[in-house]
Amino acid sequence: MATLPRITTFAWVPEFARGFVRDLRPRWAFEEVGQPYEVELIRDAKTAEHRRVQPFGQVPTYRDEEADIFESGAIVLCIAERAGRLIPNAPGERLRAIQWLVAALNTVEPVVMEFAINEIFEADRSWSAERRPVVIGYIEERLTDLQARLGDRAWLDGDTFTVGDLMMVSVLGGLRGTGLLDRFPGLAAYVARGEARPAHRKAMADHLAVFKRAATA
Amino acid sequence: MATLPRITTFAWVPEFARGFVRDLRPRWAFEEVGQPYEVELIRDAKTAEHRRVQPFGQVPTYRDEEADIFESGAIVLCIAERAGRLIPNAPGERLRAIQWLVAALNTVEPVVMEFAINEIFEADRSWSAERRPVVIGYIEERLTDLQARLGDRAWLDGDTFTVGDLMMVSVLGGLRGTGLLDRFPGLAAYVARGEARPAHRKAMADHLAVFKRAATA
Repeated sequence: MATLPRITTFAWVPEFARGFVRDLRPRWAFEEVGQPYEVELIRDAKTAEHRRVQPFGQVPTYRDEEADIFESGAIVLCIAERAGRLIPNAPGERLRAIQWLVAALNTVEPVVMEFAINEIFEADRSWSAERRPVVIGYIEERLTDLQARLGDRAWLDGDTFTVGDLMMVSVLGGLRGTGLLDRFPGLAAYVARGEARPAHRKAMADHLAVFKRAATA
Repeated sequence: MATLPRITTFAWVPEFARGFVRDLRPRWAFEEVGQPYEVELIRDAKTAEHRRVQPFGQVPTYRDEEADIFESGAIVLCIAERAGRLIPNAPGERLRAIQWLVAALNTVEPVVMEFAINEIFEADRSWSAERRPVVIGYIEERLTDLQARLGDRAWLDGDTFTVGDLMMVSVLGGLRGTGLLDRFPGLAAYVARGEARPAHRKAMADHLAVFKRAATA
């Protein structure tokens, strides 16, 4: 029997990070394509040992018989390509799926992270409260544009759910609990649609179960 | 004769943005693979017309007979795949090239942009000066890790220059003129090595020539 692909994630994270760690992305992709996988739990990502696989001391990483990579965006693309699913075969559609994956990572996620940085990592800084509306402005600019493009489509490129949607829903999920999606009902419905997929529910349940087990251990 | 691929960029940008607009990335990729291309200059990216191609009102966009996409990361990958160059064929190496491209876009570029936001877009805010060392701290954390991984390699994955290097050098080029690379001689040499490639020199010259023409027109 072939070895299963294996990802790493944290054995434990603080409450605020649960539901947000990026192992959710490969978990979701694996569930979408029906690929069983293994999870290796690590206590500390900043060790020399882990940095040999992930130079920035982060999770997740991915390993199979051919590949040994990091970056959730690259991992999700790898899972989709290996399975021949979540990514269309026709060249034009395939490139649009990749385009949306990159847009999620490079155009939308930076402003979502900006908010997390302001609200969590810079929460005790003198500027945090005053800077908040500026950061929210960056997010709203992106969300306005994205919602306009989505229109009444089910998914970003029409009727077919792709890696681009998986990544965009996951990135927008980073706003869960902030109320910032409330002013964008089209996007809120899009995220709800993505998170209601059985593959996402299973991935989220498995993701959270790790930390629940750790909390009661 | 087949139609050439065509990208869009701005007809004019202010002085501080010259050398940094992301049309540089596809230009560089085109030059590396020897693919002639056309450039369409647009005056305003926020029009309804341009937003039909680029929903966030940005440049560059890319169009050929099959594809019509945006996001410099996706465009560079498209150019590389179409040419069968800048991206290895062996699955493991190919995925590592994509991994580094994604790392440039999602792990390194957000902190580089954070600095630009603080120094340019939030320059007149009350917190800008006080926040500067915090933002520099984010950058230095990433650069420390990246330099450690690069080690004495010529390129991120060894001897072969890939789309991952093209994107990482381009992202780190965003620090040009800030002095922030000075403390990282290994990375500064890596960026210099990338920017010394004939394809980069040609791309940069063509990029700058647009704005010089506009300035004297």
